[in-house]
Amino acid sequence: MNQKNCMVAQSGGPTVAINASLAGVIDGVSASSMYDTVYGSLNGITGILNDDLLNLTELMDGHPEYLSRLAQTPAMYLGSCRYKLPHYLDDDSPYVFIFKQFETYHIEAFFYIGGNDSMDTVLKLSEYGKRIGSSVRIIGIPKTIDNDLCETDHTPGFGSAAKYIASSLLEIAHDTFIYAVKSVTIVEIMGRDAGWLTAAAALARNGYNTAPHLIYLPEVAFDPEDFLLDVKRLLFERNNVIVAVSEGIRDASGNYISASEQSIDTFGHSQLSGAGKTLEFLVKEKLGVKVRSVEINVLQRCAAHLASQTDLDESFALGKKAVALSEEGVTASMVTIERTSNAPYTVDYSYAEIRQIANEAKSVPREWINSAGNDIEQPLLDYLAPLILGESQVSYHNGLPVYMDVSHLSKH
Amino acid sequence: MNQKNCMVAQSGGPTVAINASLAGVIDGVSASSMYDTVYGSLNGITGILNDDLLNLTELMDGHPEYLSRLAQTPAMYLGSCRYKLPHYLDDDSPYVFIFKQFETYHIEAFFYIGGNDSMDTVLKLSEYGKRIGSSVRIIGIPKTIDNDLCETDHTPGFGSAAKYIASSLLEIAHDTFIYAVKSVTIVEIMGRDAGWLTAAAALARNGYNTAPHLIYLPEVAFDPEDFLLDVKRLLFERNNVIVAVSEGIRDASGNYISASEQSIDTFGHSQLSGAGKTLEFLVKEKLGVKVRSVEINVLQRCAAHLASQTDLDESFALGKKAVALSEEGVTASMVTIERTSNAPYTVDYSYAEIRQIANEAKSVPREWINSAGNDIEQPLLDYLAPLILGESQVSYHNGLPVYMDVSHLSKH
Repeated sequence: MNQKNCMVAQSGGPTVAINASLAGVIDGVSASSMYDTVYGSLNGITGILNDDLLNLTELMDGHPEYLSRLAQTPAMYLGSCRYKLPHYLDDDSPYVFIFKQFETYHIEAFFYIGGNDSMDTVLKLSEYGKRIGSSVRIIGIPKTIDNDLCETDHTPGFGSAAKYIASSLLEIAHDTFIYAVKSVTIVEIMGRDAGWLTAAAALARNGYNTAPHLIYLPEVAFDPEDFLLDVKRLLFERNNVIVAVSEGIRDASGNYISASEQSIDTFGHSQLSGAGKTLEFLVKEKLGVKVRSVEINVLQRCAAHLASQTDLDESFALGKKAVALSEEGVTASMVTIERTSNAPYTVDYSYAEIRQIANEAKSVPREWINSAGNDIEQPLLDYLAPLILGESQVSYHNGLPVYMDVSHLSKH
Repeated sequence: MNQKNCMVAQSGGPTVAINASLAGVIDGVSASSMYDTVYGSLNGITGILNDDLLNLTELMDGHPEYLSRLAQTPAMYLGSCRYKLPHYLDDDSPYVFIFKQFETYHIEAFFYIGGNDSMDTVLKLSEYGKRIGSSVRIIGIPKTIDNDLCETDHTPGFGSAAKYIASSLLEIAHDTFIYAVKSVTIVEIMGRDAGWLTAAAALARNGYNTAPHLIYLPEVAFDPEDFLLDVKRLLFERNNVIVAVSEGIRDASGNYISASEQSIDTFGHSQLSGAGKTLEFLVKEKLGVKVRSVEINVLQRCAAHLASQTDLDESFALGKKAVALSEEGVTASMVTIERTSNAPYTVDYSYAEIRQIANEAKSVPREWINSAGNDIEQPLLDYLAPLILGESQVSYHNGLPVYMDVSHLSKH
């Protein structure tokens, strides 16, 4: 028997596009003349270690509707993990076991869909594989709502999160504008180290909506005094001021702008408040104006009913691309998106060596942020605009979006 | 000149269906043989007092596309207010002015779209009008995401908020299930005094998703010890426990379950934490398990891109119904929805005397909540299920929902 198979896993935090890449891999394998079966490793790399595998070819075969439903399903069909491989020079036991599993299941290629940490795993597996002379191709497929991976124009999952954030910001603006009283609304957006997502709030601006009126990214040191002056100035001009702020803003010394609070209630707890809540406190105390903070929270990474079709299409294409590249013998790499034109928006799919990507992060360039550090510049808007285009056509049943059954994740 | 006009205003907190009722009024007037023009009063009743009026007939005439766009636009096209009329026996000056304005603009009927407080205004205007022998019909059109108005089967705006909450809960479940580690997720839902919205989270349950695993409504006294036991028990059975909790839960003495916190950071603030955050603290401290709280916040009342079409259709129909009733001479009333059948779901539109509605509130019946007070019963699910059916077909431009221009609200 001369079976050739491949394996795929997902890792890191959820996005609404990471299953589209999985669907792309499955589709690529079903069209492949090389691979017979694609196995899914449950909960990232730990599925290989625990022998927790799904035969995806068997599961999906004869159900073409599953693939499109999978592509529209949020989070990870295969589950995730936060497991960090030790360096093989320190401890090679997991490597020995993983490559033995590859042999057992006749695995010729392993695809890992994830963000920065997952690309570190791709790098380590590639290095170990090279060292032992393994022929298994190791290819990373990027995903992260944070858009902070290098060597790719942008990351799968980012466009959908950006679309959700911009739409929500517009809806919050409608919600806020109804009262003819002075008010400040702070919207806290994810992105601990990079401001891409927070910048996307600016896409909410249109012919009648000028919100967000202020935007603060982690790339520029945050000064509470400047912030209060900015808000004060705007409150002279208009009733409702809406501020988009990254969860990761820091002061000039690099300390996060967040408040550590001590409860004085009967339970007696202490808790770290986010940047949004902290700015809310600040405005309330120093300006005495009506103020509210809204944390968009996990919905920005899992609201698949409002995914960007552009994002889903690209994520799917990257999954297929990874399969095709593995057939050509490419390894120790991550598939990438290259923007070939902005208007009309066109992309090519390519790849880059994983050692140029793992453990690196891409921030918003300073010149794409205005000099005052409280708004973004046109080139960033031009970069962002095409990524949110198109609406995922999710089916509804009983009034709710139809996603893939993930009950296999609860069995563990 | 024998002109006959009418007037409409909106008040209270936003919903995504309140503009559908406004569109229904405008449509009703344009089909009416009685009324020439419908005026919109900006920012509720205060628009009449400040002579801040929009000629809606003129604005919408010849733009049939405006009406459907208006019906899909979140919050209030006419703006809102929180103005409370004094009793006319204490101070009749605003009443004198309002009814003088009605004369000036040849107003034969006034429609007020709002919740409990707005129905108080409808009652007061009706009583004053009766006292001075005015022929102006005063009719309330209900709206509130809280679903706590009496005499109507449910309120416009509730079904859409319920749909958003159930969909978000399902998406949060997908987001949560990916990690094979014990975790608790607390989702805080609006509804200070009534648990209808929080109960709607149960609609997220389907063939593979059993979340929310616990539901706490303000109608049942909340016991922190029982809550911790409930969570502990569930953590034995499964990895991820998801809890839906109303912002308005109270202990047996009627005190809100929320934590008053004192900041110990450089800014030095104090702040009241919501129920979700408070339960998060409690779980972290007492159970030491991974825990997160998500406050769905204002998006549950303004995310018009995920409105229930059933809700929008009914809201529109109620607006038209109010116009038709006013032509028949009905006054001092609120239009209502009567459910005539559950399967298939059918409704009739009717009306009830405003004095039976104003300043009353409708809670979830105790028998629709389970005896342990941590879940809901089937009759409540049957009541809720039809209200979230159908998806609003919002148009998109540049990747974002297209809503009505509300820049007129920012000019004040």
